[in-house]
Amino acid sequence: MRGIAYLLVAVVVLSGVVYITHASGHSDKEAAPIFGIKIPAGYRDWKLISVAHEEGNLNDLRALLGNDIAIKAYREGKLPFPDGTIIARLAWSYVPSEENDKVFGHAQSFVAGAPTNVQFMVKDSKKYAATGGWGFAQFKDGKPAGAPLLKTCFPCHEPVKARDFVFTRYAP
Amino acid sequence: MRGIAYLLVAVVVLSGVVYITHASGHSDKEAAPIFGIKIPAGYRDWKLISVAHEEGNLNDLRALLGNDIAIKAYREGKLPFPDGTIIARLAWSYVPSEENDKVFGHAQSFVAGAPTNVQFMVKDSKKYAATGGWGFAQFKDGKPAGAPLLKTCFPCHEPVKARDFVFTRYAP
Repeated sequence: MRGIAYLLVAVVVLSGVVYITHASGHSDKEAAPIFGIKIPAGYRDWKLISVAHEEGNLNDLRALLGNDIAIKAYREGKLPFPDGTIIARLAWSYVPSEENDKVFGHAQSFVAGAPTNVQFMVKDSKKYAATGGWGFAQFKDGKPAGAPLLKTCFPCHEPVKARDFVFTRYAP
Repeated sequence: MRGIAYLLVAVVVLSGVVYITHASGHSDKEAAPIFGIKIPAGYRDWKLISVAHEEGNLNDLRALLGNDIAIKAYREGKLPFPDGTIIARLAWSYVPSEENDKVFGHAQSFVAGAPTNVQFMVKDSKKYAATGGWGFAQFKDGKPAGAPLLKTCFPCHEPVKARDFVFTRYAP
């Protein structure tokens, strides 16, 4: 009996380990299709490029962050962005803040709610030559979006070819 | 005549120098009244806390950045914020983006325009004991806002005493 009890404990503990490994594997290690991009380590610590709000189906508040190569290029106005540039687009649901509105005395305040998804543009002029030198990825809860969605990225960015296919301007 | 011409050139050049010195003095060195806060060096490089949009008279997009002490406290859910915490609120005018709307196929995109002003909350539980341990400052083009405006800061933040007088929550 004692042997079976130990075995049961071992199975439960091991299941937990497997589950945790699997979950963290999702959030850090799974690569997006087509461009093979993984979530870059520490991107949440990157410096701010700008902010934006999208209405409609997106209905979000968003922040653009850049790795050091991106920020340097932005601040120097350098185009095209050098290889190694990564731009991260974080987004959160667009939520009215009753708490803030109460203080202002009327409805006017919108804040970041739950995260929606995070997107990355990665510059590698050789690897991604067919798409303007940029690779694209999107992750929701650490899980990458599929190829059909990623195929729409570059055509959408083509109108801003003059700015190296990047929509967002640096906010001083 | 030649002497007068040189003198005129000298006066014009010197006026320029005086103007530039004055302007840069404004942007880095002038302290806000009451709390004596200067613009913290390198705040534009700080990590992102969250983003927001205010309608009405403010009509802006804003980003909250924190120094390392602030970010650590936010991520650990530590309250009250420790002394040395500085929270920066940047804001830009709320501008519809025709360029983005064209790509989306309809009006939905709002981006950061010209900067409006930047505000800081600085935690020093002894120095600012009378205002919940927080000092407040606001700068526009490097020039600090006056005492009458700064006197309105703390009363406005009092409703969120339970979160150490800080409205903004960390956006994961």
